[in-house]
Amino acid sequence: MTLSEVDTPALIVELDTLEHNIRRLPASLAQGRVRVRPHAKSHKCPEIAHRQIAAGAVGVCCQKVSEAEAMVDGGITDVFVSNEIVGARKLQVLAKLATRARMSVCVDDARNVSDLATAAERAGSTLTVFVEIDVGSKRCGVPPGPAVVELARQIKRSPHLRFGGLQAYHGPAQHMRGVAQRRAASAAAAESARQTRMLLQDDGIECAVITGGGTGTFGFDAGSGVYDEIQAGSYVFMDADYARNEWPGDGPEFQQSLFVWTTVMSRPERSLGSVDAGIKSLSNDSGPPLIYERPDIEYVRGADEHGVLRFKLEERAPRVGEKLMLVPGHCDPTVNLHDWMVGVRKGIVEAVWPVAARGAIH
Amino acid sequence: MTLSEVDTPALIVELDTLEHNIRRLPASLAQGRVRVRPHAKSHKCPEIAHRQIAAGAVGVCCQKVSEAEAMVDGGITDVFVSNEIVGARKLQVLAKLATRARMSVCVDDARNVSDLATAAERAGSTLTVFVEIDVGSKRCGVPPGPAVVELARQIKRSPHLRFGGLQAYHGPAQHMRGVAQRRAASAAAAESARQTRMLLQDDGIECAVITGGGTGTFGFDAGSGVYDEIQAGSYVFMDADYARNEWPGDGPEFQQSLFVWTTVMSRPERSLGSVDAGIKSLSNDSGPPLIYERPDIEYVRGADEHGVLRFKLEERAPRVGEKLMLVPGHCDPTVNLHDWMVGVRKGIVEAVWPVAARGAIH
Repeated sequence: MTLSEVDTPALIVELDTLEHNIRRLPASLAQGRVRVRPHAKSHKCPEIAHRQIAAGAVGVCCQKVSEAEAMVDGGITDVFVSNEIVGARKLQVLAKLATRARMSVCVDDARNVSDLATAAERAGSTLTVFVEIDVGSKRCGVPPGPAVVELARQIKRSPHLRFGGLQAYHGPAQHMRGVAQRRAASAAAAESARQTRMLLQDDGIECAVITGGGTGTFGFDAGSGVYDEIQAGSYVFMDADYARNEWPGDGPEFQQSLFVWTTVMSRPERSLGSVDAGIKSLSNDSGPPLIYERPDIEYVRGADEHGVLRFKLEERAPRVGEKLMLVPGHCDPTVNLHDWMVGVRKGIVEAVWPVAARGAIH
Repeated sequence: MTLSEVDTPALIVELDTLEHNIRRLPASLAQGRVRVRPHAKSHKCPEIAHRQIAAGAVGVCCQKVSEAEAMVDGGITDVFVSNEIVGARKLQVLAKLATRARMSVCVDDARNVSDLATAAERAGSTLTVFVEIDVGSKRCGVPPGPAVVELARQIKRSPHLRFGGLQAYHGPAQHMRGVAQRRAASAAAAESARQTRMLLQDDGIECAVITGGGTGTFGFDAGSGVYDEIQAGSYVFMDADYARNEWPGDGPEFQQSLFVWTTVMSRPERSLGSVDAGIKSLSNDSGPPLIYERPDIEYVRGADEHGVLRFKLEERAPRVGEKLMLVPGHCDPTVNLHDWMVGVRKGIVEAVWPVAARGAIH
């Protein structure tokens, strides 16, 4: 089947650029001691996770227990849940997953450590536990300092828990536009993590791994000498929001591989058109999509099932029935709207991969 | 099971208020000649559609062919696809559905009318076709005027098509904040539709049905004497965005019945907390959710899997593990993120309904 025959809206992955991106991240870190553990919350697709591991990744990150379950069911054997997991049912599932795969998780709360220890004991499993420090996201984590040592001690006292180290992830830094801003945010996060590691060492606690970083800061994070694992996820796909970041040199090292394929369904005016991909096909949390290689067309507004286009060059405007490639505003929540992704190479459909962890919100 | 035992995030429907809303819309129009055809794009759930029909609705609207298919599969026998359907595969499915249910659809393009006629002929079915007029949405529809007569003639000439009338839906009017604004937009749309009906009559074409209206304007639409069917959808659930509209009298006639149930997963600062429902559980296209009956808590920012809360009264701040009810910013795309909805009455789970048309984007 050719791309032109694929029904719309459809999530399209250009396999050549996907593979380029998957190779590029570990290659770009090859001189260093830093490992790659890509975030599977971006793709939610074991087929892509396996390709990342084949290219050198040590495992994947997930953000939810149900997402981790989909990865373990898909054959991934080393999953870090880079988030706090709260609630008896979720802890039970997580502890049971640890009988099938190497599982790790974050904490920032003493009661949560006890609950994790109980769940792992009941499941007869061992969980590796990272203390999350708040390095600027202000959404989870304890402040760098004595509270970290307290939690690490508590983890080390728990027979079914193993202290893994620190998570120091700065989410907002990924989307700061300026290179200098991102460099500074990454450096501050790394310094907090470095000092906390020393505090732990002073207490006789070895901090084996510091994990964090993302597509916007991975180069700075890896170059800090502090981070041991990099969690970048969006790099496999990229999106219109990452394209708005300034990048060192000639631009990002990664190429756009993710698209939403859409059909023009109406031409209400000469300068306006509607496509069949709206908010239910394209998350607009980080702004509207771009039209790939068509700077003469602007996606001005998304409704639930419509996208309204403005044509700057009316003579080039597409007719009803023509198809266009959209570059999503934000890749992760856009992928989560689709049940499968269509892998295309040179205009030919080569694979259809289920988005196995689509809707895995628990 | 009690609500407190339901794992989070979960889409919750309060059945008492849902049933109130379902009864209220037809009751509010009982004095008139106007029929109710609720929009199923809001709930995507045949169980709710059947309840709407039991309360007097004549059928449902859908926005996509695949959504219509889920409704027909769920036992709904009269479905209006209130949208233009473009593409051979979709037209084939639509025409085939018309062998199982009464199907109608919109057009605004002569070529599309031919394609519909061909598809219906091949399937051996009959499709009822409405001409959409653009009454202010500027996304689909032909301008009110002679182009409508041309399309209606073409439909009437096609043996497998039946001319149903006009769609005159004003999307943006639903969310205009002021009552006077919405009344004026509804009146202008109704006047366009009335004049177009007269134009058709002058040409000897009977326009049996004018369809349109939504939760924000249905009272004005129904009172115009022009509309025959009202397409309101969100009224079954309501949301934070509709709550921001001004309403005549004491407020909207409908009560909030849709919620997202979430757990506090972190308390990074005394005045801040994070919940486990972010953009992948709550569409933020119309702003963040509200915290139900907790004006002392603000949902300040959603990330993919996190919602960051600010506590105005620190002494009342919930602890890690406590659960909260969120009122979604926008109901339709939020429902589309969930695989099922949990029906609750007086704190007890009474039903779990699949969101059968979740992800039905074709």
